[in-house]
Amino acid sequence: MAETTVPDPLEPLTRDVVARLQAHLDGPSATVRAQTREALCELGLEKAEGLDREAYRDQVLEWLRALAGGGAGARSFPPELGGEGDPAGSIASFQTLAHGDLSLLVKVGVQFGLFGGAVHRLGTEEHHRKYLPGVASVDLPGCFAMSESGHGSDVRSIRTMARYDAAAQEFVLHTPDDDARKDWIGNAARHGRVAAVFAQLDVAGEARGVHAFVVPIRDEQGNLCEGVEIEDCGDKMGLQGVDNGRIRFSAVRVPREALLDRYGQVGEDGSYTSSISSPGARFFTMIGALVQGRICIGSAGLAVARNALTIAVRWGERRRQFGTGLDMDTPLMDYLTHQRRLLPAIAESYALQAACDHLTSEYVAVLTEPGGERQREVEALAAGLKAVATWHMTRTVQDARECCGGKGYLTENRFASLRADSDVFVTFEGDNTVLLQLVAKTMLSDYASQFEDLDAVGMARHLTTRSVSRLLSESGPLGRFTRDSAEPRDASWQGSMLRVREERLIDSLARRLRRLVQSEGMDPLRALSHCQDHALKTAIAQVERIAHERFTMAVEAVEDEPTREVLTRLRDLYALTVMERDRAWWLEHGFFDGDTGKEVQREVNVLCGQLRPAALGLVDSFGIPDALLRAPIAVAPQTSGAGTD
Amino acid sequence: MAETTVPDPLEPLTRDVVARLQAHLDGPSATVRAQTREALCELGLEKAEGLDREAYRDQVLEWLRALAGGGAGARSFPPELGGEGDPAGSIASFQTLAHGDLSLLVKVGVQFGLFGGAVHRLGTEEHHRKYLPGVASVDLPGCFAMSESGHGSDVRSIRTMARYDAAAQEFVLHTPDDDARKDWIGNAARHGRVAAVFAQLDVAGEARGVHAFVVPIRDEQGNLCEGVEIEDCGDKMGLQGVDNGRIRFSAVRVPREALLDRYGQVGEDGSYTSSISSPGARFFTMIGALVQGRICIGSAGLAVARNALTIAVRWGERRRQFGTGLDMDTPLMDYLTHQRRLLPAIAESYALQAACDHLTSEYVAVLTEPGGERQREVEALAAGLKAVATWHMTRTVQDARECCGGKGYLTENRFASLRADSDVFVTFEGDNTVLLQLVAKTMLSDYASQFEDLDAVGMARHLTTRSVSRLLSESGPLGRFTRDSAEPRDASWQGSMLRVREERLIDSLARRLRRLVQSEGMDPLRALSHCQDHALKTAIAQVERIAHERFTMAVEAVEDEPTREVLTRLRDLYALTVMERDRAWWLEHGFFDGDTGKEVQREVNVLCGQLRPAALGLVDSFGIPDALLRAPIAVAPQTSGAGTD
Repeated sequence: MAETTVPDPLEPLTRDVVARLQAHLDGPSATVRAQTREALCELGLEKAEGLDREAYRDQVLEWLRALAGGGAGARSFPPELGGEGDPAGSIASFQTLAHGDLSLLVKVGVQFGLFGGAVHRLGTEEHHRKYLPGVASVDLPGCFAMSESGHGSDVRSIRTMARYDAAAQEFVLHTPDDDARKDWIGNAARHGRVAAVFAQLDVAGEARGVHAFVVPIRDEQGNLCEGVEIEDCGDKMGLQGVDNGRIRFSAVRVPREALLDRYGQVGEDGSYTSSISSPGARFFTMIGALVQGRICIGSAGLAVARNALTIAVRWGERRRQFGTGLDMDTPLMDYLTHQRRLLPAIAESYALQAACDHLTSEYVAVLTEPGGERQREVEALAAGLKAVATWHMTRTVQDARECCGGKGYLTENRFASLRADSDVFVTFEGDNTVLLQLVAKTMLSDYASQFEDLDAVGMARHLTTRSVSRLLSESGPLGRFTRDSAEPRDASWQGSMLRVREERLIDSLARRLRRLVQSEGMDPLRALSHCQDHALKTAIAQVERIAHERFTMAVEAVEDEPTREVLTRLRDLYALTVMERDRAWWLEHGFFDGDTGKEVQREVNVLCGQLRPAALGLVDSFGIPDALLRAPIAVAPQTSGAGTD
Repeated sequence: MAETTVPDPLEPLTRDVVARLQAHLDGPSATVRAQTREALCELGLEKAEGLDREAYRDQVLEWLRALAGGGAGARSFPPELGGEGDPAGSIASFQTLAHGDLSLLVKVGVQFGLFGGAVHRLGTEEHHRKYLPGVASVDLPGCFAMSESGHGSDVRSIRTMARYDAAAQEFVLHTPDDDARKDWIGNAARHGRVAAVFAQLDVAGEARGVHAFVVPIRDEQGNLCEGVEIEDCGDKMGLQGVDNGRIRFSAVRVPREALLDRYGQVGEDGSYTSSISSPGARFFTMIGALVQGRICIGSAGLAVARNALTIAVRWGERRRQFGTGLDMDTPLMDYLTHQRRLLPAIAESYALQAACDHLTSEYVAVLTEPGGERQREVEALAAGLKAVATWHMTRTVQDARECCGGKGYLTENRFASLRADSDVFVTFEGDNTVLLQLVAKTMLSDYASQFEDLDAVGMARHLTTRSVSRLLSESGPLGRFTRDSAEPRDASWQGSMLRVREERLIDSLARRLRRLVQSEGMDPLRALSHCQDHALKTAIAQVERIAHERFTMAVEAVEDEPTREVLTRLRDLYALTVMERDRAWWLEHGFFDGDTGKEVQREVNVLCGQLRPAALGLVDSFGIPDALLRAPIAVAPQTSGAGTD
């Protein structure tokens, strides 16, 4: 019981522990991260201050080229294409870039990840030879033209057409109406010379589904190509350094070779062939490129939150607060509400990083050996983690800004741009709400595959038995889940609580859907929409369970004892923060009694008190150079026992 | 039970009901609101687009003068001073202004509310004659120089000095060091000619506490006065149209008459007199001016949230979403998660408006008859409601922006400025966290005054008896609070749940504090800091109980049946949203069983479905003209049964 064994607060972290924590966060791609940090610091990010929109965009292009010169562009391409064959390093580099200028980050993502990724994955050797060197050097700035005005997240129903004209051996790309304009396309409004355009392929009157084509949009002098109209998306809340545009094609002709034809080929004669026979499977293979984008955005969201946390914790140590009778030397960080706004977010940042690292290595494995359940899991986790990590980011940036009061409102202290630039993360690369529904659908189909032969009653009986028996075997009788038996600091108790929530949520979601469909005759997808809030909770519960599981495994692998101690407390704080936030669920389902609920809240306070002296060291472990933070209030206080590098 | 009596969805609201709802929200100051809306529409707010900072500031000053020409400036001054003696109208006008440009709003608040308010309240007849006409016409732009760099919210410990030089019959104002600079002072950086400066009065070596002085800072040509240094606060996240600055005084001399001496006078000979003998009471009387500021900011926060809700609901009706099997004609508003993000916020907006209206009328009563418990209650509610309403605003604006996806990220659709401009509301005019602690302290002293003669044990016993007996008398036996007895649509059940939470929270907070102080020997204020999260929850619980209570009373007074019906559902949705959010508390304290918790969540879904057809009409009832919304995506859809004016 926590009350009888409250450990003392940690000492401020030593330089050594901070370095080990940073190594833990940096993971296997530590070298790439260090190179990226250094390259970023050399760019002179302050040069963007005060520039107007077009000048800022040009500055970002210049930075992009400087990074490309350092090898950032080709990192994920295979060595034979001039790259390093290191997609994990590419993701780590992207995450590290998010400590700097987010317009540059997005431009990197568009050029190397999306445009380069489309050519690399969907194209064949000739495309690689022809385009990838220009992608990597940024001599050929490119666009990823998938989204349309009318159908933001629904790629399958895009309406740009690509009709094959066999006589001319050309494809004719055409935008039928305003809703089918390519929208929000980065690099389109100013710098792009070519675009990977996703369109509905029509060969000899037969619809072959979504395919990608390399389409020139500007010549070398920057003049628009014939039949291409581009409109600037205009001023945005943030990311003003990214030249987003809308593209319309009027019967634009490209040669047959413009089709990125790795998964679907059109012969000279207009014959269509594909190694993937099902149009649905072909579509999903082609869309796979989006998965890395989602992993990248989720990771970047964690990095943005770390900038905010670093600034707020350093200011919280320096700023003295008045008026509750503590003497004037009391730093803001000594206040419980301040601790509660910042320390659980630090713990969450660590836990979500563990999930991210796991996802990255699974993703790399799937790249080598695609398909199957593992690929589905990677796709689902990429979607779920993107949503959870970017909402963590918006909450954290907001809390951190509020913790800095008026100082946080000054542009010089960076919250203005951190927030405005990152805000779109929650709705682009798949809207968070939509992504979580995808996760829930994957969970439901996994679930359904276990119960194919059972009717509703049989399924319900089976579920109850399964849940109960699993709990009994793992955690002893249900009677354990009272205050006397709750073990808030025990990872296996935490894990079983997170697992039972995930299981029960998917169980009850499936049962609700079955009832709506079978007994009330509702259309299955309308039924899912009817249970949308339930589906979202279920998806989030899965991500949180995985984060806890992976963080626990990562912590247990740490050998240095003081480092493991602080990580263990962060893990506990993560688990208990999740449980505190959603404790009503465990209460409603009989896994907590009232005292356990209160105990969880108390324990969060205790952990905040214990971790408080480590706060400065913890944000130092994020390893963000001052040249990237660029916030006067984040100057490291003299009282810090730990150092940044 | 809700499940057996689920009423049908409402019909789309008729024009008549929308008009009645708007009249309900507009309240007794409807005429002032209409005038303000009209005056705002005439200003041409789009003129600020694309202006640089200084040009924007000058534009805002021009608008301010235009509003002053329409009588906005003198509204709260008594008729004999050229005003209308209508502080309630002044608050309503301020709230309405928040639908427009927030830099203008803040400038109005600084000039008329803070600077004008200081002269009006703290000055005497001669000051009124000398300054108020210039305040009302904006011929004399003024500052309210209270906050200092080192002490944002702690007025009592400001360190600007005002020493009386009896020989010269002058006060000498001096800034001892950088921490004592006046900071964040609106109107200081560019337009202000004079400032109400708060400083520690020293008469003949005796400290007399904080007093306010009218100090010239610029001459008519805009040159700084001797001894006055002003620095621009620089670029901010938002509110760039407000010229915030830092002021330093180097032995600046002002005549004896510069003291705003209604509550404390310095005679020619250096004698000090005051009608309020206790320095503490005197201080609080002088600070009373801040109360109206807090009421205004809380109200303005509600208005900002309404702009965001109007834009998001209108777009949610127009935008069709794909992919969950509903046909393409399904508007976003038909999705449950969309409803859950927007409709409870609309309900909360209505409920908090009821609390605001109550607060305003109490405030007006206290202005006539200051002092006593009523004044303390007004001060506490002003603080608490400011915090709750502005956090409601930040949550709502963020949710609304996310509901609009990429469209919400475009500057033209206004979320960028709505959010950036309003964000400081949560930390200025008293940081929300600090304000809620003030509320909790007031609650604790009210509480303590009931138990002066009891020891801890006696108090605890008394409390238990009291809570239980009160519940028994109001709501029958505790056994009622199970699913079978919960009455989610019954205002008296809702009210008793909200009351019991507030009572128990203050009870347990007092007991925890007593234990820490008496048994553990902790300093009382350190003990309060130790229980800070508990104190915040307690304060929020009080505000929510009052909002529900006042909204219920307001709804019951409505005679038109269809109008009362929709208001009743909004009241239910507000109550159940509050309960859903914090349902763990009722579960932990035995007032809900698990089924009640689930029932509350289900009922929120049901209410969302019922209110969904009314969504457009509900945002129309906010009465925000398109010229103020200025968002292309908020063009009212044709499908609306209801009209805007």
